[in-house]
Amino acid sequence: MKADILLKNACILSMDESFQTFYPGAIAIKKDEILAVGEEKEILEKFSADSIIDCNEKVLMPGFVNAHTHVPMTLLRGLADDLRLDVWLLGYMMPVEREYVTPEFVQLGTLLACAEMIKSGITTFADMYYFEDDVAEATVKAGMRAICGESILKFPTPDSASYEEGLAYARKFIEKWKNHPLITPAIAPHAPYTCTDEILQASAALAREFDVPLHIHISETATEVEEMRKNIGMPVVPYVKKQTLLDTKLIAAHCVHIDEGEMRSLSHANAGIAHNPSSNMKLASGIAQVQRMLELGVNVGIGTDGPASNNDLDMFEEIRLASFLSKVSTGDPTSLPARDVLALATTVGAKAVHLQEQIGSLEPGKKADLIIIDVSPVHNSPRFQRDPDSVYAQIVYAAKSTDVTDVMINGKWVFLEKELQTLDEKSLLKDANKLAKEIDTFLIEREQSVLSKLIAIGGASEAESFEVQTKVCITNPAPIVKAINSPELEILRERHYREYDTYFYFENPSQGKLRYREDHFVGDKGKVTQVRSRLTHIGVSREYQFGDKALLSRSRYLAPASQSLRFYREYFKPAQEVEIEKDRLRFLIKFQDTEFFINIDTIEKPDLGYFLEIKSRTWSRSDADVKAEMIPALLELLGASIEHIITDDYIEIVEKR
Amino acid sequence: MKADILLKNACILSMDESFQTFYPGAIAIKKDEILAVGEEKEILEKFSADSIIDCNEKVLMPGFVNAHTHVPMTLLRGLADDLRLDVWLLGYMMPVEREYVTPEFVQLGTLLACAEMIKSGITTFADMYYFEDDVAEATVKAGMRAICGESILKFPTPDSASYEEGLAYARKFIEKWKNHPLITPAIAPHAPYTCTDEILQASAALAREFDVPLHIHISETATEVEEMRKNIGMPVVPYVKKQTLLDTKLIAAHCVHIDEGEMRSLSHANAGIAHNPSSNMKLASGIAQVQRMLELGVNVGIGTDGPASNNDLDMFEEIRLASFLSKVSTGDPTSLPARDVLALATTVGAKAVHLQEQIGSLEPGKKADLIIIDVSPVHNSPRFQRDPDSVYAQIVYAAKSTDVTDVMINGKWVFLEKELQTLDEKSLLKDANKLAKEIDTFLIEREQSVLSKLIAIGGASEAESFEVQTKVCITNPAPIVKAINSPELEILRERHYREYDTYFYFENPSQGKLRYREDHFVGDKGKVTQVRSRLTHIGVSREYQFGDKALLSRSRYLAPASQSLRFYREYFKPAQEVEIEKDRLRFLIKFQDTEFFINIDTIEKPDLGYFLEIKSRTWSRSDADVKAEMIPALLELLGASIEHIITDDYIEIVEKR
Repeated sequence: MKADILLKNACILSMDESFQTFYPGAIAIKKDEILAVGEEKEILEKFSADSIIDCNEKVLMPGFVNAHTHVPMTLLRGLADDLRLDVWLLGYMMPVEREYVTPEFVQLGTLLACAEMIKSGITTFADMYYFEDDVAEATVKAGMRAICGESILKFPTPDSASYEEGLAYARKFIEKWKNHPLITPAIAPHAPYTCTDEILQASAALAREFDVPLHIHISETATEVEEMRKNIGMPVVPYVKKQTLLDTKLIAAHCVHIDEGEMRSLSHANAGIAHNPSSNMKLASGIAQVQRMLELGVNVGIGTDGPASNNDLDMFEEIRLASFLSKVSTGDPTSLPARDVLALATTVGAKAVHLQEQIGSLEPGKKADLIIIDVSPVHNSPRFQRDPDSVYAQIVYAAKSTDVTDVMINGKWVFLEKELQTLDEKSLLKDANKLAKEIDTFLIEREQSVLSKLIAIGGASEAESFEVQTKVCITNPAPIVKAINSPELEILRERHYREYDTYFYFENPSQGKLRYREDHFVGDKGKVTQVRSRLTHIGVSREYQFGDKALLSRSRYLAPASQSLRFYREYFKPAQEVEIEKDRLRFLIKFQDTEFFINIDTIEKPDLGYFLEIKSRTWSRSDADVKAEMIPALLELLGASIEHIITDDYIEIVEKR
Repeated sequence: MKADILLKNACILSMDESFQTFYPGAIAIKKDEILAVGEEKEILEKFSADSIIDCNEKVLMPGFVNAHTHVPMTLLRGLADDLRLDVWLLGYMMPVEREYVTPEFVQLGTLLACAEMIKSGITTFADMYYFEDDVAEATVKAGMRAICGESILKFPTPDSASYEEGLAYARKFIEKWKNHPLITPAIAPHAPYTCTDEILQASAALAREFDVPLHIHISETATEVEEMRKNIGMPVVPYVKKQTLLDTKLIAAHCVHIDEGEMRSLSHANAGIAHNPSSNMKLASGIAQVQRMLELGVNVGIGTDGPASNNDLDMFEEIRLASFLSKVSTGDPTSLPARDVLALATTVGAKAVHLQEQIGSLEPGKKADLIIIDVSPVHNSPRFQRDPDSVYAQIVYAAKSTDVTDVMINGKWVFLEKELQTLDEKSLLKDANKLAKEIDTFLIEREQSVLSKLIAIGGASEAESFEVQTKVCITNPAPIVKAINSPELEILRERHYREYDTYFYFENPSQGKLRYREDHFVGDKGKVTQVRSRLTHIGVSREYQFGDKALLSRSRYLAPASQSLRFYREYFKPAQEVEIEKDRLRFLIKFQDTEFFINIDTIEKPDLGYFLEIKSRTWSRSDADVKAEMIPALLELLGASIEHIITDDYIEIVEKR
């Protein structure tokens, strides 16, 4: 019988159900399909071909299935490392993505990723990113197989101003690629915490309508699960089940923090889990309980995650880590042995991404996706053959991605004798480095200014404010409180706060200061009823108008502090920090038909004693002037002397001490 | 000023105290030393040289220090994997080492390791093995730098029949190599649990006498620490302190299970710790608390451990893992960032192996041990330069060992433009594969027979025994016990046991059976006072002599079961297991001046009821005959009938059911 290509004299790992190996083995390929796999003698008797290749006793096995990645992010590899997830994501990835992610970016990043993946023996990957149509086009150009998932989020993304636009893009994208030999289109609602019930349900409906996979991040961090339990009262898998996600061809990435019940649900739904060892370790997300998942029958594949959080696309590294992590976390060195972990990266991985009919093992009728690995280099020698499993151990524990010599996808050589066949690596590298320089420049400019860093993470708005501020040092608050209750004043509102301020100072004082303030509202019986956080950038410029007025203007940027103090500390990297804690009784009063705030403050940290403040912030200069004129009379009414007026902020008092 | 070699246009990571980098940088080398490191312009102005090499913007940094390994074990790489430590060590490594480790083996294994290490950027390693004189010779041949530690154990080793011989070898070895430019001789008492107080003290004295390092395994597993606490009442570091080890230049490998007090002791003693991430994960030993060690000021180096438990000598893998492990185990992604972990593999590692005066950083006066790394391959592109730490992240998180292009040790190129300069890789591989075939043959033969596997792990002795055995099924033990107490019998000893037998069956029945027996001695008030385990190989051949005698002979191998049932199960891999549990009253009696054992057995699992046994085992056929003749009379005295005699073992009764 005539085949197109015969590969002979190989150590073949079929990775089929019974883990058949053939050594010396041969494989016959016609067009995009495997005709037969077996002992060399048998195959050579049955088949002839024009192209017969001697594999020189190298290992021939199915290509790796990279079950979860974001391939265009090769272009952001090494941009920022050793940061906490939020700082990394909100401080670097998202601002740069907002600025740079275009169809061209996505195509270049995908081609670069394909070059790297092909060279390291990956033949199929499950992607999740923006402009997925361009990911698909670039993937086809590289000759790779992929499950391309268009990302949907509740926020605007680089390719969609709203999630409705995103869903419309996804529908069009799926329709376009539905029957492509290399591309399986998919929908990828990013994660439960970045989507809404509506988005998840609509995504699942779309996935069912076209019978395509739904790719999503699930329970990557402990925080995600805690939040879900707190807000919705259940862990993440039951929640997505409620949104009908388990009725789709689900690819659930990470699943670091799921319990046995959730594992059983995923197993029952025939869902795939994509385990990402490097990413979970590097971002300190935790250790997924892979052994238990496998015992409960879940199809667990292995993924690299995006190259910006890994920082490479090396499945050799991932399979080794998956085995190592399982061993050290269960305390059992026999856990996830070499053969089994290699199965996760091939045949089980194919099930996890719902392509088991086509790929994952070398069997007649399956697509010809295969790789050839040289196991004779010095770092993998000598070669023992007593134990039939030792070749699996060679690949998992000692082989390197650079030992891959040849890769065939869909019957076509994409890497032959260590040469890429479909891609021009040099020109890709040149384009990538050019873009990296642009991003470098963008970030260097941004990093030079605390203010632009603040704006980069969103939400800051500038406000040139005219502030009337009068501060008087007092020894006893009681008579002041009594005076406030006098008939000349009308109390409109009365509040009790505890305020915790942290000021960030920077090496270059011209950067100004950043204040992180937590307001704790103190209610009845001294209980804290609400906490509010704000971030204020205080510029250095300041204008005084002294005399009997207490007027000053300054430039401030205000932002609600949606992240933690820790986040801002790691993001802004202050050179120094100063803390001020105070107890504040705050009155909004009306005096001669004009509203003022009166604060009676006890500065407890550092111990500065009691202060009376009269304040009014206004955006009108003339209004400020009027108010400033009234202050002496108000002060007199409250029994405080205008002679002791201080216009400094508390932080300035602290600085001058 | 004239230098021998100038390397220019490099991205230099000096790894000095202040982490100076120079880009473009240059370095001037004369003989074995670094003359100067700095900005290219400055160095080229000051120095000239006949050899000026353009590094093409590659990274130039100090070579890696592999702080703990057993280099000749390259020859055992991949021999046995995914096994528990005891099965791996006692079942495979030690039997093969006993058979194969010779000076020639050690030389070949070392050369193979040096080829692998040089290619992956290691310039110095701290070794611990046998025939260390040959390790040193091969290392010098390869042109590498090493701390060579001669192993001392309380057991016979491949190079020494006793520890006294080992110590004598070590003294001679240290005297010979004491002032070598590349080799630092050392003494390596293997571990507290494989040494004695005396060995540790003598080793420490020798280390102090010659001022050489003492290299030892410390607290690798939790079991080791538990045993030490149980037996000596303290953890391992205080114990070795008592043996004066902290007064030496200590290199403590592993330290996975040490507490903060122990860390402080090691820090105070200026000891080095060698952290081995791959090995600790693969063998499921645990996760060393490296971040805490560093906070407490310990010099932590990074090691690959031996290539039989890793399975390679790749420091790129180890540094990445060290960082990843620290992050995931502390839950903090900022833990052990790239720059710091690279320092552990270079400058801190040099301190850990007590060579900080010579190596670890690129500084004037230090030895010229350096490597050049290409960070431009597709898996490490693009290259961002905004953050000065990003080059460290490139090396730690994305570079591969195969990106090393050049290596210089002691001022000499050992790897130049990816070509080994001192070693013939092909011939090494040929010799190694030849040896691997021999070891394969040896193990295949051994694995074919349960008996030879038993002998391989030591302690089994053959005994052709003639056994007189008479068994009678009874319904009530009470009258028998009464009869035993009759004046015709003298009770010499009386014991109460509970016996737990596990029989291993093999696929091929001609392999015989293995019995693992636990005897629980039941003392007063039914308390178990002692437990004893034995292993018996029961051959299939058996001779019966029926009639009124109850004589049989069989071949048995007996061995004290020093390992757990779990160990034997994983080592022998039985096809089937059968358990028998019984309660046994055992009397040693004298009847007509002849000693017999009488057992009154209750077989509880499976429930077979009560049996009376009369037994005598003897190695003399004529003695056996005499005893067999006496049995009918004894049976009659006990009130049991000879008509119901059974000669089967309990396991045979179970088999026939």
